Amino acid sequence: MTEIKFSGFGGQGIIMMGMLVGKAAALYDNRNAALTQSFGPEARGGACSAQLVISNDTVLYPYVTTPDILVAMSQEAYTRFEPTLKADGVLLLEENLVRPHPVEGRRRQYAIPATRIAEELGNRMFTNMVMLGFLCAVTQVVPLAALVSALRDTVPERLVEKNLAALERGHQAGVAQLAGASLSA
Amino acid sequence: MTEIKFSGFGGQGIIMMGMLVGKAAALYDNRNAALTQSFGPEARGGACSAQLVISNDTVLYPYVTTPDILVAMSQEAYTRFEPTLKADGVLLLEENLVRPHPVEGRRRQYAIPATRIAEELGNRMFTNMVMLGFLCAVTQVVPLAALVSALRDTVPERLVEKNLAALERGHQAGVAQLAGASLSA
Repeated sequence: MTEIKFSGFGGQGIIMMGMLVGKAAALYDNRNAALTQSFGPEARGGACSAQLVISNDTVLYPYVTTPDILVAMSQEAYTRFEPTLKADGVLLLEENLVRPHPVEGRRRQYAIPATRIAEELGNRMFTNMVMLGFLCAVTQVVPLAALVSALRDTVPERLVEKNLAALERGHQAGVAQLAGASLSA
Repeated sequence: MTEIKFSGFGGQGIIMMGMLVGKAAALYDNRNAALTQSFGPEARGGACSAQLVISNDTVLYPYVTTPDILVAMSQEAYTRFEPTLKADGVLLLEENLVRPHPVEGRRRQYAIPATRIAEELGNRMFTNMVMLGFLCAVTQVVPLAALVSALRDTVPERLVEKNLAALERGHQAGVAQLAGASLSA
């Protein structure tokens, strides 16, 4: 079972990220997935988070308390959820929006300027797709092909190509970081 | 605690309905809400459903097994989820997309041609808002004002007025049906 927390602020496409990984896992990777959003006072300030549980069996309890993977796309999200990440978890950061403290223990941490890359691709709206490609490369939580299929199912036809380009750009960045990390190890 | 199941097919704005009622309850009506989507083989066929739990306390278990309220916007959704509705539950139907069997027991059932009304208002995209206004009038699960506030928070500025018009149109239809029902009783 893999528990993923997606977090940031409203408008970053946080929920869409969870939905796409969930669909990829369930429809194209033969697993089960449940996505949960809780609404509380924190949502009023524009904070946004979603929790995805992926399992080979039926998901009985969809809340994520200690995620295996945390995607933090704002400083507030990082501050709030970073302490809940598992000791050997993977942390993915929006490089220009989060200033992290030093990495502790066995945790793996990766950062990507997803917003800037999306803007280079023509629209900040693709930020979440850049991050999703990055997540896919770094964690391999779902195959890239499954994510591409889920994206084609979900996004309006006219936006598919641009979303795919953003996804692939994020994926390349992730692959490059992994290669760099293993070279320097 | 109130459990609501929203169901239909992809593109009807099913998840958005759940999100807006959840935000309305949590941010503007001082309650707690959790929204869950499960992805499984049925999602491949275009079926779509979301489950919302609203509670005065923290929501500990966000799955809905026997909803108090079922919104069914396709025949498939009706066939699949109607048997799970509580005996004294409320069933809301898209009038032109669902052909129900006769009402049983203490169940209350209401139907609205939400898609046709949305088209009259200029765009099928507002179908979910018509249904949401109708839901609000008939079940009073959240105050209309809370729903309006949640909508303003969520929908892009340029779409707010049209979404509000659709919400109000659905609400009026619900109020009229309740008045008719009490007149004929």
